[in-house]
Amino acid sequence: MRRKSREIKIGNKKMGGTAALLVQSMTNTDTKDVEKTVSQIKELEEAGCDVIRVAVLDKEAAEKLGEIKKRINIPLVADIHFDHKLALEAINQGVDKVRINPGNIGNIENVKKVAQSAKHKGIPIRIGVNIGSLDKKAEAKYGRTARALVESALNEVRVLEKLGFFDIVISLKSSDVARTVEAYRMVAEKCDYPLHLGITEAGTYMAGTIKSSIGIGSLLLDGIGDTLRVSLTENPVKEVLVGRQILKSVGLLNEGVEIISCPTCGRTQIDLFSLVEEIEKLTASIKKPLKIAVMGCVVNGPGEAKEADLGIAGGNGRGIIFKKGEVSKTVLEKDLLGEFKKELNKFLGAK
Amino acid sequence: MRRKSREIKIGNKKMGGTAALLVQSMTNTDTKDVEKTVSQIKELEEAGCDVIRVAVLDKEAAEKLGEIKKRINIPLVADIHFDHKLALEAINQGVDKVRINPGNIGNIENVKKVAQSAKHKGIPIRIGVNIGSLDKKAEAKYGRTARALVESALNEVRVLEKLGFFDIVISLKSSDVARTVEAYRMVAEKCDYPLHLGITEAGTYMAGTIKSSIGIGSLLLDGIGDTLRVSLTENPVKEVLVGRQILKSVGLLNEGVEIISCPTCGRTQIDLFSLVEEIEKLTASIKKPLKIAVMGCVVNGPGEAKEADLGIAGGNGRGIIFKKGEVSKTVLEKDLLGEFKKELNKFLGAK
Repeated sequence: MRRKSREIKIGNKKMGGTAALLVQSMTNTDTKDVEKTVSQIKELEEAGCDVIRVAVLDKEAAEKLGEIKKRINIPLVADIHFDHKLALEAINQGVDKVRINPGNIGNIENVKKVAQSAKHKGIPIRIGVNIGSLDKKAEAKYGRTARALVESALNEVRVLEKLGFFDIVISLKSSDVARTVEAYRMVAEKCDYPLHLGITEAGTYMAGTIKSSIGIGSLLLDGIGDTLRVSLTENPVKEVLVGRQILKSVGLLNEGVEIISCPTCGRTQIDLFSLVEEIEKLTASIKKPLKIAVMGCVVNGPGEAKEADLGIAGGNGRGIIFKKGEVSKTVLEKDLLGEFKKELNKFLGAK
Repeated sequence: MRRKSREIKIGNKKMGGTAALLVQSMTNTDTKDVEKTVSQIKELEEAGCDVIRVAVLDKEAAEKLGEIKKRINIPLVADIHFDHKLALEAINQGVDKVRINPGNIGNIENVKKVAQSAKHKGIPIRIGVNIGSLDKKAEAKYGRTARALVESALNEVRVLEKLGFFDIVISLKSSDVARTVEAYRMVAEKCDYPLHLGITEAGTYMAGTIKSSIGIGSLLLDGIGDTLRVSLTENPVKEVLVGRQILKSVGLLNEGVEIISCPTCGRTQIDLFSLVEEIEKLTASIKKPLKIAVMGCVVNGPGEAKEADLGIAGGNGRGIIFKKGEVSKTVLEKDLLGEFKKELNKFLGAK
């Protein structure tokens, strides 16, 4: 059961409430370089990125945001640290959301100015707390804990609420998975603002994917979370692909092909690695939701394939093709891929 | 808080209770081919595999288990489907555990024979339920649900308990992450047997890693699970590496280097991708637990690096090296890696 969160608007998208979960990423270009930044955002859009954030390091970068915004199709978020004037300029440039870090944005007067400006333009603010830059008082009281992450965020939330500002998104990131999950579970109980999930500084491609999958995935399974960003020390396109795969894995994104394939064991009597690879290539561009099983033996094969729209199980030089749970054909192993293609085309045509 | 499970013995290892979580994998060689099977097991041992399972397809394979067992250092598990006589022969050959699938092992008399033989030899049995081969009655009553997975297992558990057999491990696998997690949470409440975690037929390397990380990881965060196997359509060495990384990510394996690195953004003013890659290579073989931060900017860098044993933060042609939370050196970017190596060696030598 999904946590009931407040629905807010971010440019042409909705976040929270019953809206679909949004996958975010962040450019790693110099924001002042409009060409490079726009080009990377287009690539990320293509990969399925729903919302894009850019770092705003200085006034010059802030002044380019309007131009960037005009040339892209997804909501643009300005990432602000230290200097609230950069937030004001970003809002003035027409960004769809700003992210501020309560640990370094300075005194309450600065936060108030940003909130008033955001309210005037009708855009939300993300209070993006990071374990590395906690609210000083919260850190002194609770140490570098989940509780401190939550209190850092809620202190800032109260400031915004007093100004009548409620279009708030919260994130509570640390590089420690257990602490991050604990913090999100805690804050989920204490307010109804949409939550932006992520593990910060998660690391390299594999280690970061594993950390992010555990942290983000376990919260999603609990019904917590309205948007997510996977942080990887990698091309941000990978962040989007992993983010989408996490959503697919927990049943929150029903798009494209899901391949169920067995790990191969001593029972496998067919070259499953190549077969799965071929089928992965063959189906990579399909947007329709489609569950395909590729099984190497008769033990689990037919049973699992029952749940797949299309399935192959092979062994001993022969193969079986399943179609929506019914055995469709028994063929020689060498004809298996060819016959599968035919069935796939029928299936796609028929849908 | 870890779920209190019964401690059992598997060869030279303990499972459950307060024992360390065990990472398992499965060979994909022909078990009859002793040379190839032993060679793959050695490779898996080297990668950190704690327990190895082999498929036992026929009598000839079962009769090779004693020879395989003699030549390896980790506990050997026989994976049995359909034919209980293969389980009897495997036990006779001295395997350390057998896995049976209640959905296909046949009538209760067969199960009893296996249990009596296992009891005589003092080895445990894993009741390995798979959504593709549920107990017929449980499936008829509950459909292909988490409840049916649990009931399939518990029906078999009751048979073993009546025989005074309690060295039981349970697994409840499906390729659906949410259903799998639900099933394990349910069974965790209903008994104290050690649980073997896994998502079955999880798929290819990336998709399977993501599914397994979410499913296994979220259970581990809840304190559920005593052993795990990541199923990937890939070289089983990858299964072991991903399994170990999952344990590290939730703080259950404190070994080797953890790299905390930021995703790079417009703020990054250093070539972080190459730097992280270099440091990853440099530290790959270190067994001592060591947390290294590699950060691309001053915003999150120093804050996160506080928690790392060693940290680098760079930007603007200069870099800072941290050592156990204290700034150790400020150096030119070109000297950063060299200076880091020196500090690393000091750190390793000093420990």
